[in-house]
Parts: sequence; structure tokens; C-alpha cells
Amino acid sequence: MDLDSLKSSEESLDPQDWQALRRLGHRMLDDMFDYLQDVRQRPAWQPIPAGVKRELKKPLPQEPHPVEEIYADFVNQILPYPLGNIHPRFWGWVIGTGSATGMLAEMLAAGMNPNAFGGEQIAALVESQVIDWCKEMLSYPAGASGVLVSGASVANLVCLAVARNSESGYDIRKQGLQGAEKRFTLYASTETHSCIKRAVELLGLGDEALRMVSVNADYQINLVELQECIAADRSIGLQPICVIGNAGTVNTGAFDDLEALAGICQREELWFHVDGAFGSLAAISPSLSVLVKGMERADSLALDLHKWMYMPYEIACVLVRDPLAHRNTFAENPHYLARAERGLASGSMWYSELSPQLSRGFRALKAWFLFQEHGIQKYARLIEQNVAQASYLASLVDDSPFLERLAPAPLNIVCFRYNPGTVDEALLTRLNQELLIRLYESGIAAPSSTTLAGRYAIRVANTNHRSRKEDFDLLVETVVGIGRQLESEYKEQRLPNI
Amino acid sequence: MDLDSLKSSEESLDPQDWQALRRLGHRMLDDMFDYLQDVRQRPAWQPIPAGVKRELKKPLPQEPHPVEEIYADFVNQILPYPLGNIHPRFWGWVIGTGSATGMLAEMLAAGMNPNAFGGEQIAALVESQVIDWCKEMLSYPAGASGVLVSGASVANLVCLAVARNSESGYDIRKQGLQGAEKRFTLYASTETHSCIKRAVELLGLGDEALRMVSVNADYQINLVELQECIAADRSIGLQPICVIGNAGTVNTGAFDDLEALAGICQREELWFHVDGAFGSLAAISPSLSVLVKGMERADSLALDLHKWMYMPYEIACVLVRDPLAHRNTFAENPHYLARAERGLASGSMWYSELSPQLSRGFRALKAWFLFQEHGIQKYARLIEQNVAQASYLASLVDDSPFLERLAPAPLNIVCFRYNPGTVDEALLTRLNQELLIRLYESGIAAPSSTTLAGRYAIRVANTNHRSRKEDFDLLVETVVGIGRQLESEYKEQRLPNI
Repeated sequence: MDLDSLKSSEESLDPQDWQALRRLGHRMLDDMFDYLQDVRQRPAWQPIPAGVKRELKKPLPQEPHPVEEIYADFVNQILPYPLGNIHPRFWGWVIGTGSATGMLAEMLAAGMNPNAFGGEQIAALVESQVIDWCKEMLSYPAGASGVLVSGASVANLVCLAVARNSESGYDIRKQGLQGAEKRFTLYASTETHSCIKRAVELLGLGDEALRMVSVNADYQINLVELQECIAADRSIGLQPICVIGNAGTVNTGAFDDLEALAGICQREELWFHVDGAFGSLAAISPSLSVLVKGMERADSLALDLHKWMYMPYEIACVLVRDPLAHRNTFAENPHYLARAERGLASGSMWYSELSPQLSRGFRALKAWFLFQEHGIQKYARLIEQNVAQASYLASLVDDSPFLERLAPAPLNIVCFRYNPGTVDEALLTRLNQELLIRLYESGIAAPSSTTLAGRYAIRVANTNHRSRKEDFDLLVETVVGIGRQLESEYKEQRLPNI
Repeated sequence: MDLDSLKSSEESLDPQDWQALRRLGHRMLDDMFDYLQDVRQRPAWQPIPAGVKRELKKPLPQEPHPVEEIYADFVNQILPYPLGNIHPRFWGWVIGTGSATGMLAEMLAAGMNPNAFGGEQIAALVESQVIDWCKEMLSYPAGASGVLVSGASVANLVCLAVARNSESGYDIRKQGLQGAEKRFTLYASTETHSCIKRAVELLGLGDEALRMVSVNADYQINLVELQECIAADRSIGLQPICVIGNAGTVNTGAFDDLEALAGICQREELWFHVDGAFGSLAAISPSLSVLVKGMERADSLALDLHKWMYMPYEIACVLVRDPLAHRNTFAENPHYLARAERGLASGSMWYSELSPQLSRGFRALKAWFLFQEHGIQKYARLIEQNVAQASYLASLVDDSPFLERLAPAPLNIVCFRYNPGTVDEALLTRLNQELLIRLYESGIAAPSSTTLAGRYAIRVANTNHRSRKEDFDLLVETVVGIGRQLESEYKEQRLPNI
């Protein structure tokens, strides 16, 4: 571009007609409020028509396109086909629900659009406040270090990176794992979430380093086996560094005995990490907090706020007891990130030094809004409500002649299957797989599945603030109805793949 | 909670008064439109008053708080004190600007609030479309694998993880780095961004494994030294695995000779990764694309969309030539993530298998909106505009008797300092440090700083779609004015810390 012609040709991405875009924004907002208010009237899930998939696919746009038309495509092609997790009868995996205020806060954050990496800016102070609230609600030490990240997978990765670096006993940032004298080992139960395995792999420790300890009938880590395993590893020259405790396992919502694990880690001088993705929130409920006794002794803790605090994606929190260990794992000080005593490059909180992210959005803002909007006591009641609803579902399952519960339900997760009274395990698996698909296709409800001791289970994980008692009645009624239908199709041999 | 009392006590996080929240939402939207429209009238940055910092700090909220009051606090305590990167004269670090439509798209995404981990849901299809557009605009192979992540730091981490695992030659996920026979090495120039070092550390490879190759006068990697370094490492029994090329360095916007690096990697059988955080976007401009020649041959590529595509935080893209290598680095298949042929758990795109994140927000939606709203040709013009503006600034610096340019400005970054004609380097550093702080405090403009060959530089990185030619005139005028003021204070010894 010719410099002389620069000014006359200058353009920006701001709208040419601010009023028109503002009007469209108000229409979008109204549509989304309708969408949230009416969610109970829509199916929990529906398949995406092949035609929509075709229409969605477009070559790289070359020329500007009216934003009203893009929005029309959004309304027709995107809005009707979500995962479904804002629906009152969505209970798949462990997925939060979001809220209208959360949506508004995300709009504000995207309008301000700071890069919350550090410096003297308000986003850093808001993040600091949210992290302080997380510590306070979990009874975690006030002097601990924290950072908000995308989710528990990354939170666990961050914590295990700090554990690895702190416990290695040499300059592992410089020399890497290939500079180690001994091989490192970590310990967790077989019920531990796969993100722990993925973190261990990413950190270069290797799966073999992650010792999977068996669980008892309540799906809690076997403490005797854990200690035997640590001793055996030491005896063959390995270097144990970390035990991972579960506050709420993904399969059944089980809690390891965190107090016992804290004691073992203290005696054995190991890093004690707790994966509390959703279960750590039990701490805020007077009736459930006994489940997480000992969690406050953890060296590091990972929790999601987009699961059992129902905030919009993405937001999770890392807490590390030793702030220096946390910072020493991630801080870099290149010239282009130099600090100053005053001005924009001052400020005491550089969150870019506490996780793999340098550029960071303002995810703290929604949490700042939502903690205040509801207050922690309401969150506690909702968590208790979800647990009571799960107990209610467990009782419905137990009372039904057609349903079989497959695991204890100590928290908010219920695993069960339709079983008309056969012992043919392969048949039961195929039957329940088809049943779950038809349940999805009915649009009535959306649990997910797992396999427990070889048995395929329909798995309801309730981190849904919109669910009501009647929703679980409808679930059971529908599951039994589909199950009986499948049985009759099976008997009439109209069901080739069962 | 008593199960019988469950129904009567049930509550949710939905507003008790939907109409009131809807009205507040419309007010927020209007306020944010005003905020964006008037941004040029506000200071580029202003310090946070101590009183605001005090007021912001609160104990964990116990009881619900009216959302109107929370919003009032937001307006008074948060909105006025951002980093400043949406302002037309913010040019610090490499930080994008955002846009009004981007803000609206983020609201829609947070309202739908899917977890875009996988399954049969529209968010996966939208993400697939955005990734296809990224490949097309960068002339990267259509068969490549891709995933959207938080930023280039994580994108580079993902790419280097794939490089490490693919090139190791054994089952590194299982055995870890301690199972390697030889020590691995990677190669990059001394101008490479610190996130590469951080990724190498996190992956357990150790800093020592990252060979920092010197640069020429244009801040490009020294190709002869690179090849000598690879050969020397091989000769002492090390195992080179990867070369990292820069498409736009953070200090000066330099481009390594990517075509030459691609050739070296081909001959040496090394993984070729390109960090194209912002510079890769040169590919979309007919006049700049020559700079990234050879980038399309990379085995992996990291780019941000929240930098030089000006999208709201957070959004970046990973591209990996070999889809299987990408998937094999991250995929886990626990029972609770089982797939199905139909229903919610079907679908062919499981983005949770392509990065450390399992839970994932709908970051693709804003990109889907913005690619279409503007079209790639407008993005190309804006990038060219930013480069022309940087050239204009460089010419102003070169024409000023008080300013000294400290590096070539091949792209959008200009490094310079105020220099009244002294050779006292220590004095120049202190003078320019104070000058930059006073520039911030003036509210006029917000560049950042770096150090080049020991010389402290004010660094203007222009990834700002709102900047105009006149903004650079004002910058130079202000810098010279502050500089002359500092000189006179210095002469009168009124400036103790210079």
C-alpha cells in the first residue's frame, strides 16, 4: 500500500451502521432469552438433518456478508441442534447447564475483550477475587496460589506439572526428564478420570509411571494396595512423587478417603493432588462436606466452575498450596514481557506465569457475577438438590422390576440398566445400547453410558440446576417403556442388531 | 434432604423475574455498544484507583445479591479499567482488538453453552468449518487435522507434543521420556517466543534440548548455524526431532526463511513446526504472502485468530498435516466416553481427542460469524493497512531527530527509542523506561517494550483494526514531547530515578 494513500483508504471492522448492528444485537438477546425460557418445551436432543449439514458447509468467504443473514443461518442451522446440556433432562457425562446471567456476563467480557495475562488491569483483580472465593468455599489455605483455566483437564495438567517439577529434586525445566536419575511414579485409582493419564503422558512421564490402584466395592482407592505399591516401587529403585485422590469419580461419584491419602502423602513425602472437577463442590454443603474431609490438606487441587457451579463454558480453577512452586513451573521472563513499577506493565498478578496460557480471556468475569448473584448458600442447596434427585432416581430404579442399579450412588451419579430378568450379559449390553440411542431419539432425556465391571450402564450424572423431581419420573417411565418395546421387538425378531 | 420434601423445595438458577433480567440485558447491550462506539474518546489506559481496588475486594458472597447492583459495580469498578487493547492507540505486546459482532457471537455461544467435546452436535460441525477455512486461507493441505484452542501458547504446545510423540520412534505415551535411548533436541532461533521454551519444558524435554540458533541482521534464523548444530548434535549421539520456524517474531515481526527450513527438515527427516501466531496471516495478503513461502510445507502450524484476525479472546488454531499423528497424541477411550452409531454419542468429530482439553466451549461460533461478516479479502486489506501504518511509523521515526529506530520493521512491529544524541546506553534505557510509563499515564497510547541487542526499545505491534494514520502522528508527537520534558527534568536534576 502506498503510504500517501493510506489515510483515504483506511477501514476498520467496526460496523458501518452502528444502529443496525445494535438493533440486531437486541433481537439476538431477545431470541436467546426466549430460547432459555422455553428450553423445557424443546427436545433434550435432536439429530442434525443431513440437509443442514450440507447447507452449513461453505468455501472460505471472500466478500462481506450481511450480518443479519449470517444470524438467520445461525437461527436455522445452529441454534436448534446443540449438545443439549442446558435442557432440564440432560444428564450426560458431567456437563454443566449455564444460565442467563452467565450469558450476559460473557457478553460483557467479550465487549471489554481484555487479554488477562497480567499488567495493571482490572481483569487481574477480578480473577484474584474469584480465586480467593474458591479458596474460601473449599477451606483451602488463603495463601495458596491459583489461576483460572479452561477446564479440569488443563487444571489437572497444571497441578501435575507443578508436582513433577517440585518433586523431581533437580532442575527439570532445564534438564528435562532425561536428566533424571530414577524413574518417577504416580498413584491413582482405576476409577481416575482419563485426563490424569493424558496429563501424565503429555508431561513425558509415560503411562507406565501412573500406577493404577484397585478400588473397593464403593469405588474408593484401596489404601493398603496403594501403600504396598509405593513401597514396592521404592524397593526396585523407582521414585514415587505424587498421589492423586478423587473427589467425585466420573463413573459413580465416589470419593477416595482423602484424609487417609493426605496422611499417606505426609508420611511418604509425596505430593498430594486432588482431582475435584465436580466433587470438590461437596465442600460447600454442610451435609456433604464430610465427603471431602482431608481435601484441604492437598498440595494442589483442580476444580471446574462450569460443572457443578453451572457456569457457562469454559472455567475451571487451579489451586496450589505453595505459590512459589506454582510460579516456578511456568514463569518465563523474556524482554518483551518486561515489568515496570508504574503504568500498564506494572501490577502484581501475572496469571500468564501460572499455566500454559499467555493470552487469556476474561473468564473470571462470569464467576464474579454469578458468585454474587446467587451466593454460596444457594449453590450449596442446588448441589444438595442434585444429590437428593439422584437418590430419588436410585430409589425409583431400585423399586422397578425392570431396572437394575449397577453401582452405589453416593453423590449425583446413578448407573443402572434395563434388565427384564436375563443373565445374558451380551444381550443386556446390546439391549441397553439400543435403548439409550432410542431415548436420545425420543428427545425426552439425555444421560450417557459407561461400563462397570464389564456391565454396560446407563449413567445419569446430575449437575443440572434445571432438573426437577418429575424429570426423573419421566426418565424412568420412558426407559421402561422403550425397554419393553425393545423386548417385544426382540421376541418378534424385528431387531436385527440386538 | 428428605426425598418427600424434594419437589416442594426445588429451585434453579433461572431468574425469578425473567422480564427484569431481560431488561437488564438490553441495558447492558446498549451500554456495551456505547462503550465500543466511544472507545476513541477514552484514554488508551488509566491506572486503577486504590479506592476501586479496595471496594472490589469482598468476602465469599453468602446470600443472593440483586444482579442490577452487581452490574452497577461492574460499570463503576470494572468497565473503566481494562487493559486497553480495544482502543485505537493500543499497540502493546501482540494483542488483538475484538469487535461488536464478536461480542454478540460470544453471547450466543454462552447462551447455547454447549460442551464442544464431540458427539453429534452442531458445535462440532461449526468448528470443522472454521478449521477448513483456516486451512484454505493459509494454503495448508485440506486433509490436515485441526482443532481450536485458547491461544498460540497452547497451539504450539499441542503441535510440539505431536512432534515429540511422532518422532520419538517408540511408544512414548506408555514409556515416557525416561524410556528413550537418546536425548532429543529441537531447534529454533533466539528470537523465538518464550511459549516454545515453556512447551518444551512442560513436555519434559528440558530447555537444554531446545537449541537456540542465532539470527542475522534481519532477525532471521541463521541457516548455516542451524545445520551445523543439527550435525554436531547427531555426532555426539543426540536425536534431533524438530525445527521450529517463526512466521512473524514477537520482537520485530521477522520471518525465518520457511522454504529453506522446510528443505532442511525434509533432508534431515525432522518435524517442521511453524509458530505463526500472528505472522501466518501474511498468507492471506497478495503483497505479503511471499513472506510465508514454505509455511504450507510445515508438519504443524499454530496460529491465533484473536490477534491478527481481531477476534475476541480466546481463539487459536492448531493444524497438523498428519491427522493420525495428531489423534494418536491425545486420544483416550475410557468407557464413559464410549461412542455409538446413532444418537447423541455418535458424530465423527471428537475435538476432545486433539488437545489437552476435554470440556470445550463453543469458541468456533465467533469465528464462523466473523469470517462471513467481513470476508477474507477485507481481513487481507486490514493486515496490509496495519503493515502500511507500521511503515509509516517507521518513516516518522526515521525522520525525527529525537527518535532512533532499533530494528528493521518488515511487518507490523516497530522498535525505537527516544535518543537526544547521547551514547550513554544506561541513561537511554532509564530515560525510555520512564518515557513509556509517562506515555501510559498520559492515556494517549499504549505500546510495550523489549530489549534488542541490549538496547531498551519502545515496541509498537500493530494488530489493531481501529488504528488510523493520524494515531501514529499523535504517538510520535507525544513521545517526542515527553522525551524533551524528561530531558529538561534530567538537566534540572528533578528526576531522581533517571
